[in-house]
Amino acid sequence: MRSVSVVGIGQLPIKKVHTANLRQLGAKVALLAMNDAGLEQVDALYVGNMLSDELQHQKHIAALIADEAGLYGIEAMQIRAATAAGAAALRVGYLAVASGEIDFALVVGVEKMEGSATPALAKALDSLLEVPDGATLISQNARVMKLYCKKYDPPPGALAHFSVNAHANAIHNPFALFQNRKISVDDVMRSRIITPPIRLLDCSPICEGAAAVILAPTDSRPGRGQYSVKLVSSAVATDRYRLVDRQNPLTLEAARISAQKVFKATPISINDVNLFEVHDAFSIMACLAMEAVGFASSGEGWRLAADGDISLEGRIPICTMGGLKARGHPIGASAIYQTCEIMLQLTGRAGDCQVRDAQVALMQSVGGVASTVITHLFAN
Amino acid sequence: MRSVSVVGIGQLPIKKVHTANLRQLGAKVALLAMNDAGLEQVDALYVGNMLSDELQHQKHIAALIADEAGLYGIEAMQIRAATAAGAAALRVGYLAVASGEIDFALVVGVEKMEGSATPALAKALDSLLEVPDGATLISQNARVMKLYCKKYDPPPGALAHFSVNAHANAIHNPFALFQNRKISVDDVMRSRIITPPIRLLDCSPICEGAAAVILAPTDSRPGRGQYSVKLVSSAVATDRYRLVDRQNPLTLEAARISAQKVFKATPISINDVNLFEVHDAFSIMACLAMEAVGFASSGEGWRLAADGDISLEGRIPICTMGGLKARGHPIGASAIYQTCEIMLQLTGRAGDCQVRDAQVALMQSVGGVASTVITHLFAN
Repeated sequence: MRSVSVVGIGQLPIKKVHTANLRQLGAKVALLAMNDAGLEQVDALYVGNMLSDELQHQKHIAALIADEAGLYGIEAMQIRAATAAGAAALRVGYLAVASGEIDFALVVGVEKMEGSATPALAKALDSLLEVPDGATLISQNARVMKLYCKKYDPPPGALAHFSVNAHANAIHNPFALFQNRKISVDDVMRSRIITPPIRLLDCSPICEGAAAVILAPTDSRPGRGQYSVKLVSSAVATDRYRLVDRQNPLTLEAARISAQKVFKATPISINDVNLFEVHDAFSIMACLAMEAVGFASSGEGWRLAADGDISLEGRIPICTMGGLKARGHPIGASAIYQTCEIMLQLTGRAGDCQVRDAQVALMQSVGGVASTVITHLFAN
Repeated sequence: MRSVSVVGIGQLPIKKVHTANLRQLGAKVALLAMNDAGLEQVDALYVGNMLSDELQHQKHIAALIADEAGLYGIEAMQIRAATAAGAAALRVGYLAVASGEIDFALVVGVEKMEGSATPALAKALDSLLEVPDGATLISQNARVMKLYCKKYDPPPGALAHFSVNAHANAIHNPFALFQNRKISVDDVMRSRIITPPIRLLDCSPICEGAAAVILAPTDSRPGRGQYSVKLVSSAVATDRYRLVDRQNPLTLEAARISAQKVFKATPISINDVNLFEVHDAFSIMACLAMEAVGFASSGEGWRLAADGDISLEGRIPICTMGGLKARGHPIGASAIYQTCEIMLQLTGRAGDCQVRDAQVALMQSVGGVASTVITHLFAN
């Protein structure tokens, strides 16, 4: 297998609503990333998106974005794993470049959430056995959070620190949705209940955005791009699809397995990780991922947040540029934003979000209620 | 890159309606293919499907099918390129195995078209610039057929031979939708006009089905499977997305480019091809693909059909087990059915559909109105 690197990135600011349409957003970040890598053409385009079928009435968006970006003739496909779509597209880009078949792969994540996003998002669950009972992504996460609180009894507000940390970091990220919205534990605890025990400030926001990265073989970078980081390894794992079928819904098996896989492929160990871009769509998911990956034991993930270990100066910084909670979670684009941020961190360009001496970064993306989890490992 | 082979197949009979649900169909063919390959586990599942978002309200079907098949923990993703989704999934399976990352990849194509398929299918077009004017896949193909007839003036009924050939071959395919429906040129010409000049018997049918294949490195087959064929090469290409933007809508650029790519990677030439599984969703598409790939010059594709060159005994047999027209076109599953049929042909097990001494097969799948075309080349 060829070693694969990220050699260019492009991001648009995340907004509640973008006036540009889906294809325009996709094409814009495609060209930004190509320009960053110093490339005028790529061999392939892999697109991450979840909701265009319902919200934009489009089911052929990879070819559409290739056309809009003027990339005629190239390979183009859309990759999906529900809310982990962006990471799935990155995974395929990695496979394509690693195989030797594709030299320059453009991976675009793009999402517009105009209109009725909630029912479309619920299609990440089981439409026969869960949704008819009223299940949504929020209700399922609420169920997990309730179980967690019952079993481990963390102090009130302990999980709120995940949101507080995310908002603190987003302040310095010019692409973040919540750039000027520092929040406190009290703010989280006083925010409106959505589905008990989940409160508004436990949830990542509905928003729109697009981001892109260029992947290329590590040893061949004919572009003018100055920066690169290695995409060391990549793994996808699934769990029992439905929460009710899991022996223990508090252990995210797919997060554990996919993290194990990425470390298996390299001498890098979890102790070398300088930052973790976690899928904090809900604060409970951030907490459980910390435990599944191995940064904390079961029932102890909240301590990392409460003790400040997840801050930029902490033992294991997470959501360093705002995470899904505060940078924003434009579903299919989120993992590509994470990748862009890791590129900035590992090349020392993360500004006031910079993690000192960051050399190794872990990234995770969750599909549904962790029915799919995709993990990527980066190093400079 | 590792050489990749197909080492197992599984098909279900295509029906107008299957009583089994989407996940059940997917899991069934997954296990059939694994059994055929002599495998009890695989490393990854790649799924081709187009319509589950609207018709089954599911957006996370790869993980769902993995769960239903009892394949816990494995990698699972869904791949899309509108109506070429199955071929896109095969493409990713090929990349995964070729890269060395995945040893045994299961590729499942599955589609249930219950309910209102037509508007969902139209999302393969442009929802902003085409669909509001009433465009559907049928109307766009009708437009191309009209142009073709005007420019090249084939004799009346010349294109009908594509459908006649497909139906003649389907008679001997136990998985075909139209197993007992031999038709004549007259039948086609007398069939109801759908959108002029397209008649009912120019169109592939709305139907349901599932098929699966196992890909593995050519030189390592620890399973008990007895048969294998090489997946020699694979390519995806895009064209200007909209018909109106193409200099000549009668040359399928994406079909031409992707075919060129698959031959570039191998000493096999187009003259070595013994059969061509073409994307005959509409008879005009079969004709234009024959021209784009190089089996006929522009404006001459219909002659291959009219002169019998496409029959099982002809110069370049196509749709050897019924094609999309008569085996059926369960959208995301079609390319996987094509792959299964090629496996049977190249291992001498195609029964009364057998092309004599078949050693090399070409396969093509079309997304939208050939905005994406995916080509695969197989050899025994």
